[in-house]
Amino acid sequence: MFEVRTDLAVEENERVRKQRQPSRGISVSEEKYEEGDVRITTVRIETENAVRIMGKPKGTYITLEASCMAEESVDYHRNISEYLATQIRRLIPEGNKSKTILVAGLGNRSVTPDALGPRVADNLNITRHILREYGSMAYGAGRVEPLCAIIPGVMAQTGMETREILSGVIHEVRPDYLIAIDALAARSLKRLCRTIQITDTGIRPGSGVGNHRHSLTEKVLGVPVIAIGIPTVVEAATIVQDSMSEFLEEISRIDPMSSLLSSWKKLDDVEHGTLVRELMSPQLNQMFVTSKDIDAQIKQMSYTVSEGINLAFFRS
Amino acid sequence: MFEVRTDLAVEENERVRKQRQPSRGISVSEEKYEEGDVRITTVRIETENAVRIMGKPKGTYITLEASCMAEESVDYHRNISEYLATQIRRLIPEGNKSKTILVAGLGNRSVTPDALGPRVADNLNITRHILREYGSMAYGAGRVEPLCAIIPGVMAQTGMETREILSGVIHEVRPDYLIAIDALAARSLKRLCRTIQITDTGIRPGSGVGNHRHSLTEKVLGVPVIAIGIPTVVEAATIVQDSMSEFLEEISRIDPMSSLLSSWKKLDDVEHGTLVRELMSPQLNQMFVTSKDIDAQIKQMSYTVSEGINLAFFRS
Amino acid sequence: MFEVRTDLAVEENERVRKQRQPSRGISVSEEKYEEGDVRITTVRIETENAVRIMGKPKGTYITLEASCMAEESVDYHRNISEYLATQIRRLIPEGNKSKTILVAGLGNRSVTPDALGPRVADNLNITRHILREYGSMAYGAGRVEPLCAIIPGVMAQTGMETREILSGVIHEVRPDYLIAIDALAARSLKRLCRTIQITDTGIRPGSGVGNHRHSLTEKVLGVPVIAIGIPTVVEAATIVQDSMSEFLEEISRIDPMSSLLSSWKKLDDVEHGTLVRELMSPQLNQMFVTSKDIDAQIKQMSYTVSEGINLAFFRS
Amino acid sequence: MFEVRTDLAVEENERVRKQRQPSRGISVSEEKYEEGDVRITTVRIETENAVRIMGKPKGTYITLEASCMAEESVDYHRNISEYLATQIRRLIPEGNKSKTILVAGLGNRSVTPDALGPRVADNLNITRHILREYGSMAYGAGRVEPLCAIIPGVMAQTGMETREILSGVIHEVRPDYLIAIDALAARSLKRLCRTIQITDTGIRPGSGVGNHRHSLTEKVLGVPVIAIGIPTVVEAATIVQDSMSEFLEEISRIDPMSSLLSSWKKLDDVEHGTLVRELMSPQLNQMFVTSKDIDAQIKQMSYTVSEGINLAFFRS
Repeated sequence: MFEVRTDLAVEENERVRKQRQPSRGISVSEEKYEEGDVRITTVRIETENAVRIMGKPKGTYITLEASCMAEESVDYHRNISEYLATQIRRLIPEGNKSKTILVAGLGNRSVTPDALGPRVADNLNITRHILREYGSMAYGAGRVEPLCAIIPGVMAQTGMETREILSGVIHEVRPDYLIAIDALAARSLKRLCRTIQITDTGIRPGSGVGNHRHSLTEKVLGVPVIAIGIPTVVEAATIVQDSMSEFLEEISRIDPMSSLLSSWKKLDDVEHGTLVRELMSPQLNQMFVTSKDIDAQIKQMSYTVSEGINLAFFRS
Repeated sequence: MFEVRTDLAVEENERVRKQRQPSRGISVSEEKYEEGDVRITTVRIETENAVRIMGKPKGTYITLEASCMAEESVDYHRNISEYLATQIRRLIPEGNKSKTILVAGLGNRSVTPDALGPRVADNLNITRHILREYGSMAYGAGRVEPLCAIIPGVMAQTGMETREILSGVIHEVRPDYLIAIDALAARSLKRLCRTIQITDTGIRPGSGVGNHRHSLTEKVLGVPVIAIGIPTVVEAATIVQDSMSEFLEEISRIDPMSSLLSSWKKLDDVEHGTLVRELMSPQLNQMFVTSKDIDAQIKQMSYTVSEGINLAFFRS
Repeated sequence: MFEVRTDLAVEENERVRKQRQPSRGISVSEEKYEEGDVRITTVRIETENAVRIMGKPKGTYITLEASCMAEESVDYHRNISEYLATQIRRLIPEGNKSKTILVAGLGNRSVTPDALGPRVADNLNITRHILREYGSMAYGAGRVEPLCAIIPGVMAQTGMETREILSGVIHEVRPDYLIAIDALAARSLKRLCRTIQITDTGIRPGSGVGNHRHSLTEKVLGVPVIAIGIPTVVEAATIVQDSMSEFLEEISRIDPMSSLLSSWKKLDDVEHGTLVRELMSPQLNQMFVTSKDIDAQIKQMSYTVSEGINLAFFRS
Repeated sequence: MFEVRTDLAVEENERVRKQRQPSRGISVSEEKYEEGDVRITTVRIETENAVRIMGKPKGTYITLEASCMAEESVDYHRNISEYLATQIRRLIPEGNKSKTILVAGLGNRSVTPDALGPRVADNLNITRHILREYGSMAYGAGRVEPLCAIIPGVMAQTGMETREILSGVIHEVRPDYLIAIDALAARSLKRLCRTIQITDTGIRPGSGVGNHRHSLTEKVLGVPVIAIGIPTVVEAATIVQDSMSEFLEEISRIDPMSSLLSSWKKLDDVEHGTLVRELMSPQLNQMFVTSKDIDAQIKQMSYTVSEGINLAFFRS
């Protein structure tokens, strides 16, 4: 009914199906693994029509879900890291030559749910400088891809667009791939810190907790961009819109005849939008919703993601 | 219509007036200062009846508001710190003998909007250990009250109730006053980081971002407790309830005859409650709403409060 | 020749042997484990005479050393954590009743080499509050001892002695054991972040990086105190004294007849002390020496210690 | 006698004078200000000969010293910030057109004495993004130069040279000046956190706590580089060498005839060097000396420097 924002392709896909929109050009496949109760969904957006319906660019969106992802268990998370490493390797296949990987830990370290990117970067097994100094012998017989990382900060702290900083560093360092880590906005509270999305489409404006203003894509940056994200917030406006929407449905179910629905139906779409905008506090657009134990979840998930990247590119 | 939670006495007072409830036993006075566009409201809850209506214990609640409190300006915040120092001194009058003050920086340093208390404690001018070692001569002719501080952490980190830790430290250190600093939940987004509440009633269960489980009051701790709080979040459930409430009012205004109100009125109070609970995601109780630049605001406000405390107890 | 400070009993024992002092009352035993190249040395100080010679109180000092302790390797550190858990269990034997353990993370989080204690406390598996609320069923068939933790801070931040805070909390919470974690001063640079000392003697004044002023012992606190420490600094004065001492020896070896030794020998002990004090900058007493990558080592070692404690008290 | 390292031109100048080396090509001027007991020394290295003697590149080195710089006093530090702003403006004169300033906060945030650069960057008044979006009207009648900032991290964290990251960002953002903030190594403990050095020569390899491997100069980066540094450590080897040197002098004073000096004099320069290297633990090169309250000093000084930069480029 109202436009709500989600960075997750699986949630857009759910919406499309619920609204029974035609889904040609959207291919969805699913794998399930008993170990760890893990579900991996691959959504491919293949046509311009699918782009329009899904509101997301063409490409592959892999979602890794596990019911107990937010639980603290070293062994369990080791499992998830291994699944993640496999998915990263699907998008960055091993070649004959080693590939330099630049990881960008996006977001604001000082705002807990936005700190995912910087904290993933903190725990990476950085190897580029060692390989450059000592050669591949430094790691014995293992296979190690040169890994480097940057934490660009956010515009309020730097005065620069993330795009400017990354373009500059890429221009100098010439990596083969950029992996951008970012905290995402989901539509549903149930997904917070329980889903990892990996995509080969990069990051588009308005996504992430911090709402990047420019695309971070191969077209813009000149190297393929793999984005890894975890939903850590729901936008405050989304919560309100969803609640009101459910409220309307519920009321009309209780009293289908006289009710609200008829009032509501007297208004046209523009009036609906106006009404909702009027009802919502203007501050709401600058607000997000997150959970009270987000600190423990960010700590846990940042290790899981950095370990996944380490496993993908470091084989001793 | 629904029960919403606020830690601010001024917001409860607004609600009471709006609902035209009798307000005997609630005294309200207001001062305005042009310098800094500051408003100081003192709410006194004086009778058992007022306690029941306001849902807050007897005592004095001083609110310091300033439209531009969230702005960054060193000079401006110096002003607010001075107003704050004066209000603290109203509740802790200067005596012949010096008084030992223990400040407790409540909350979770790792969750940005809950970090107010720990960060205020970080910037205090701690003097107790110096006065004990060198005597009052250490600070020349100035008047300095012995100030000490503790950051007790939250139960998930310590396994202990805040009450247990504070009782223990108070038992050993025997301060004359406890000043508890805590991040609060407001009802209105407009108040976030724009209001300071100072009260002589201590902290009661359920208040603060972290929802303390036990009272931190003179009765429990054996020393007078001054609580200083700043609203940094609105509970997610409050946002939803308020939005739905406004939605109902608006709809009934548009279509007063046929509408929703009649549907709604067919349900009794218990049914209302049930409906709302059903509509709301169970996760919502563990969620809060805060602003995207909460890091800058917490940084600014924590300096303002610690400087206010420093000015109150350190006169060189 | 000069008095140098070390918090490690194995280093005192080396000194005693080197100086061929009688070592009655000092018992030393050693175990070696090939897995991880680990050496565990147990020094027992058993008589008043041994106390005088060693400059340390009666009790058991267990030292866990491993050549590659400072290396980053998840598997390797898991091993060390298991050895550590076993040693902790030697000092806190499992009984019929569960024992409440309070961990105190001593030191200053803001000074990197002193942050060991606070960072160990950050990563503990805290269980006391859950066991109190849900009973032992909360963890199924596992055996879990109630674990709680406090980070008391340092006197410059709190205005209180660490002893005051811990006495207070112990008075309220009544744990069966206190485990105090602290960063230590070693005599030798070679031991930095390569040794873990576990002792049942508690902590005495002057030990730790921050130089506690009061004993934290069973006698003072009323509960048995196990201290776990890792050397993270050498005092600046120690480095200078040791270097000068070696310099004298070397010079006298090169030129045994004419040399410095004779000059030096013309001075008596008081003159030696005076000379050294004059040579040393007075600032030196407020200085410590540590390594440039102390951040990575503290991060690594704090996980190793917290995992050791978790393994000791949580058996699922 | 031995080679010791200092990043401070005033210390090199003292050494040159003490050794009565010819000082042609080195110009030194000094100003004193009663307010705040401040001394500003300007050393100019003007000839190739002076470069060789001083071991530093041609250029201007301004040193701002104040006896009580390490003390905590808001008013006092405001003064120092104003002096600093004036000196910055000497090196970056105000022109008709506004100049974009990029500040680089060098060093490792996780190692307390190396955190100066990142912490200065944290507290800057960042304006470039606002000026780009809203124009100079955003700040009313004031004169504001576009300020942006980056915290590049250290090679162990990023896998990239600082030079690579800065070159890239400069290539993209095209600032008029780079201001590089870095923690320095002094020769004397007395200077720690009591001196600010401002120079137009940039940063050369081996300087700073973290020992940058590449020059950060106009030649390398393509824009003028102003370096602002504060000594926060003394290298461990320096402490030892200085102590041994004083020890030799003292001994030879006590016993000029028989003594050590004659032993010492039997060795040639190469043997001296060999002896010292042998005496010194190889670990010593990876070690630094700093003070136990370095956290409070870094906190204080980082505010003073960021406020100095803010005052230089923001005039409301």
